[in-house]
Amino acid sequence: MQFLGAINFSLPLLASATETADSSMVLAAVLLSLVVIYLASKVGGELSNRFGLPPVLGELVSGVVVGVSVLHLLVFSEGGTDSNLIITFLQGTAGLSPDAAAGVFAAQSEVISVLAELGVIILLFEIGLESNLKDLMAVGIQASVVAVVGVVVPFTAGTVGLMTLFGIDALPAIFAGAALTATSIGITSKVLSELGRLSSREGQIILGAAVIDDVLGIIVLAVVASLAKDGAVDVSKVVYLIISASGFLLGAIALGNFFNKSFVAIADKLKTRGELVIPAFIFAFVMAYLAAAIQLEAILGAFAAGLVLEETDKRKELQKQVIPIADMLVPIFFVTVGAKTDLGVLNPAIPSNREGLIMATFLILVAIFGKVITGFVVFGQPGINRLAIGVGMIPRGEVGLVFLGIGSSIGILSKPLEAAIIMMVILTTFLAPPLLRIVFPDSEAVGVASELILNTSGTPLAVESPTAINSKSNDAANPEATPDGH
Amino acid sequence: MQFLGAINFSLPLLASATETADSSMVLAAVLLSLVVIYLASKVGGELSNRFGLPPVLGELVSGVVVGVSVLHLLVFSEGGTDSNLIITFLQGTAGLSPDAAAGVFAAQSEVISVLAELGVIILLFEIGLESNLKDLMAVGIQASVVAVVGVVVPFTAGTVGLMTLFGIDALPAIFAGAALTATSIGITSKVLSELGRLSSREGQIILGAAVIDDVLGIIVLAVVASLAKDGAVDVSKVVYLIISASGFLLGAIALGNFFNKSFVAIADKLKTRGELVIPAFIFAFVMAYLAAAIQLEAILGAFAAGLVLEETDKRKELQKQVIPIADMLVPIFFVTVGAKTDLGVLNPAIPSNREGLIMATFLILVAIFGKVITGFVVFGQPGINRLAIGVGMIPRGEVGLVFLGIGSSIGILSKPLEAAIIMMVILTTFLAPPLLRIVFPDSEAVGVASELILNTSGTPLAVESPTAINSKSNDAANPEATPDGH
Repeated sequence: MQFLGAINFSLPLLASATETADSSMVLAAVLLSLVVIYLASKVGGELSNRFGLPPVLGELVSGVVVGVSVLHLLVFSEGGTDSNLIITFLQGTAGLSPDAAAGVFAAQSEVISVLAELGVIILLFEIGLESNLKDLMAVGIQASVVAVVGVVVPFTAGTVGLMTLFGIDALPAIFAGAALTATSIGITSKVLSELGRLSSREGQIILGAAVIDDVLGIIVLAVVASLAKDGAVDVSKVVYLIISASGFLLGAIALGNFFNKSFVAIADKLKTRGELVIPAFIFAFVMAYLAAAIQLEAILGAFAAGLVLEETDKRKELQKQVIPIADMLVPIFFVTVGAKTDLGVLNPAIPSNREGLIMATFLILVAIFGKVITGFVVFGQPGINRLAIGVGMIPRGEVGLVFLGIGSSIGILSKPLEAAIIMMVILTTFLAPPLLRIVFPDSEAVGVASELILNTSGTPLAVESPTAINSKSNDAANPEATPDGH
Repeated sequence: MQFLGAINFSLPLLASATETADSSMVLAAVLLSLVVIYLASKVGGELSNRFGLPPVLGELVSGVVVGVSVLHLLVFSEGGTDSNLIITFLQGTAGLSPDAAAGVFAAQSEVISVLAELGVIILLFEIGLESNLKDLMAVGIQASVVAVVGVVVPFTAGTVGLMTLFGIDALPAIFAGAALTATSIGITSKVLSELGRLSSREGQIILGAAVIDDVLGIIVLAVVASLAKDGAVDVSKVVYLIISASGFLLGAIALGNFFNKSFVAIADKLKTRGELVIPAFIFAFVMAYLAAAIQLEAILGAFAAGLVLEETDKRKELQKQVIPIADMLVPIFFVTVGAKTDLGVLNPAIPSNREGLIMATFLILVAIFGKVITGFVVFGQPGINRLAIGVGMIPRGEVGLVFLGIGSSIGILSKPLEAAIIMMVILTTFLAPPLLRIVFPDSEAVGVASELILNTSGTPLAVESPTAINSKSNDAANPEATPDGH
């Protein structure tokens, strides 16, 4: 068996004299993880679609099934576990040694996590390509109002409620309240796209508000984190964040014309393969990096890049080419979100969960109603589906978990409060897709009811094609869908 | 500045309570690396194309420029260096702490390496989709002869020459001889595709022979490695490899009909986005994993998957969707190959390099002529471009470096011999694209000369469109190229 050691060393595709023996195992583990992710995303997405629900819900749920909560096929090393079934499988089938397993597991986790992050970056880039800056600006004031109300109400209600009803100290209550602020732009935009509602007025307001409240959430984070560290607010830091965030977004818009002209000029000059996607990705990745570097989220940079390139006449061809890339990378994000979700916090047999469940019920109610009311503050938009706007803002995600992460790391959150925040993030994430499906009815699923709802306002919106949600080529995310070969 | 630490923690997109603070930095490092890779690939590819050379040569060369040899922008942690300029840049711009830098660097190296490996897997999948199994089988005997001659001649000439001319011991000489055997299927297939010659008879013979000699190379490796370990050949291991390799390739072909019918049936049932690429990638990644698990190369599995799916009527639509994905991932592979190439071994100021340079000259001559003669053993193919076949087999790569890696790890290769093998791999890799360009002339670049060469055999081959190599849409790798928007 000594020989096996030498042979295993022969597998790396890019082996060099100094490379470790494990790189082929990392590749094998990544390949198997991707197979698991793709199987889960297709099974979940198709089933969800068959029940008239947005496919992304099925991807999240099947992510939970293959993840840390159930099957342990897709588990990440930062979760504190030693291994997962894929690593065990590799030990059995491909001669991975137990000594090397931990390193391979860590590398596999890292690679899949980065692929998931690239997936959501590509998703937001694609959403940007499908959005129109002028349409977004047209609802800019409404979106800002929705965003501000949707940050202030849940934050205040959550903080005050936790202090008065549950006797929580001010600082942890503020942390939990802050975790209620920011909408998950990835989930909400994907569902809107799947429902064919991204370019509706409601969709544009939700998208604009989600971008703005992401920025607000990051500013709240800065305030809360400096409060927790020093007991006082670091005003200069907050001012810096506000200026850099506004500067970034306004700068991207202002220089957009320059960027998109340069992009077209460069793409026209290129004569080798990838003449559109490569310059587009260079731009998107630079913007994502800049957003991250000034302490915004990378996805906001990718969204801004998509918005800028939407203005060019290369848009249609670029959209068409980005679709398969998004199809490959985006499911990795949603399945990974599901896989990292530990449903163990919902187990009432654990005492801290029981206390957490009560607080979670409160936080979830605040999370839902604090966002649903935002739709009713929209003004000057007669006939708009106010409920849909509020529901579109419900999903929390990344930013809520970041508050949790910081709160845990500085040790101010109790176990029950931690569990309650996780439950709030899980439930708002998983509730939003089916709720959005209900408040954005199409004629097939809800029939007459939908028309009644739409008509009560006196301004009927264009009714979607009955098959929109079920059809791959009518998908609004896929406006230029090439016809299938069959 | 304490506060910065807290804020940096806020950036991860998928942060969870237990995740490390560095994941946002890993993402930032990966984004910057991709920007460097894409800039290098486009600048190099376009310049190369402008000089009438295959774009992939430019990608390799610009990889060298940004890599360990020159700019140190794209350096990998396994190279023994501590850091690269991107990490240094992150320390300056994004607040990466020096303590965390090593971990971020290692993770970034791992992610980019795996992305490069996924790139060559997608490349071989695409090449498989463009190849026709019947055409490959039609030249199967010729390809086998080319492969066997191309393994036996360089191996024998290299080993005997090193022993007699340079007084090298038998075992290291056998190792170096073995490193001369296997053609780099990635480089040769990409160049053929760029020249629009992949589906020519010569292209099919080269591709078939490259697949076969990859398998032969792996068997030679098994023999040589067991010789080095135990002083005797482990016959059972060699028999196992021969049986499993033949079984894998023949099994994929025999069951191909079953697989492609299942694929079509499944793809027809799917109604959500990614209905073609996701099932196709599940199949390709499973095949790649199986190939790796039975100790072949992962890329052979991806090639077999592409060949199988080429037989379906979804082929055209699938090819169209794979093109942008390949455009995104394949350049990562070629730029990375260049970046990992250390031109330091060519520096004659270092004594061991001087001795190595002389041996390298010998090895390179054997490497080139040992493969060039293979074209002249092809029989029953009147009018074929024999020189082109031989030249197509010249590039060594992965497998050669694997021999080097194993030889170094068991300490039987002297420093000069190691340097000589690296030089041989570098030079054959970089020489093959321009040489192939010369032996596959098109009327624009070589004009009358090309017609003379082609006509001396009495059977003129179809002359490529004059603009084939320079045009993005005439590229044979892109038979279904969608017209550009402009």
